Amino acid sequence: MAEFKYEITDKIGVLSENAKGWTKELNLISWNGREPKYDIREWSPDGSKMGKGVTITKEELYSLKELLMEMELEAPDDEPAL
Amino acid sequence: MAEFKYEITDKIGVLSENAKGWTKELNLISWNGREPKYDIREWSPDGSKMGKGVTITKEELYSLKELLMEMELEAPDDEPAL
Repeated sequence: MAEFKYEITDKIGVLSENAKGWTKELNLISWNGREPKYDIREWSPDGSKMGKGVTITKEELYSLKELLMEMELEAPDDEPAL
Repeated sequence: MAEFKYEITDKIGVLSENAKGWTKELNLISWNGREPKYDIREWSPDGSKMGKGVTITKEELYSLKELLMEMELEAPDDEPAL
């Protein structure tokens, strides 16, 4: 597999954690020294391994936020609907 | 590669389209007949091919929306900040 470098320039938040401690996170990541992009993917408990995910540009994240603001999302039990 | 079935049960929205016509989309997808999950990934112009992506549960999408609502996102030129 091609060698690549990455740097998590901003850990924005955790979306979930599974039973094995892997976390699905929204981060800002610079790949191979390029300008950082938003990124949603799973990480091993110690952060050394990553799963499949998707990079998201600023414009795409803006569009995603617009979509989510139009959606009525059912809240997990103890939270208000968003 | 393992055979798998999928059904796009709800096309929620397009986050972007690249020069080759591939679109990055938020959809609700049922994989192998299981309960549909949200999904962000790229699709070929005719929808016959898919790129790497990430599945997102209702709870994760709720958390993602919470995170995005706390973020001030710079708007693409002609749009209001969100």
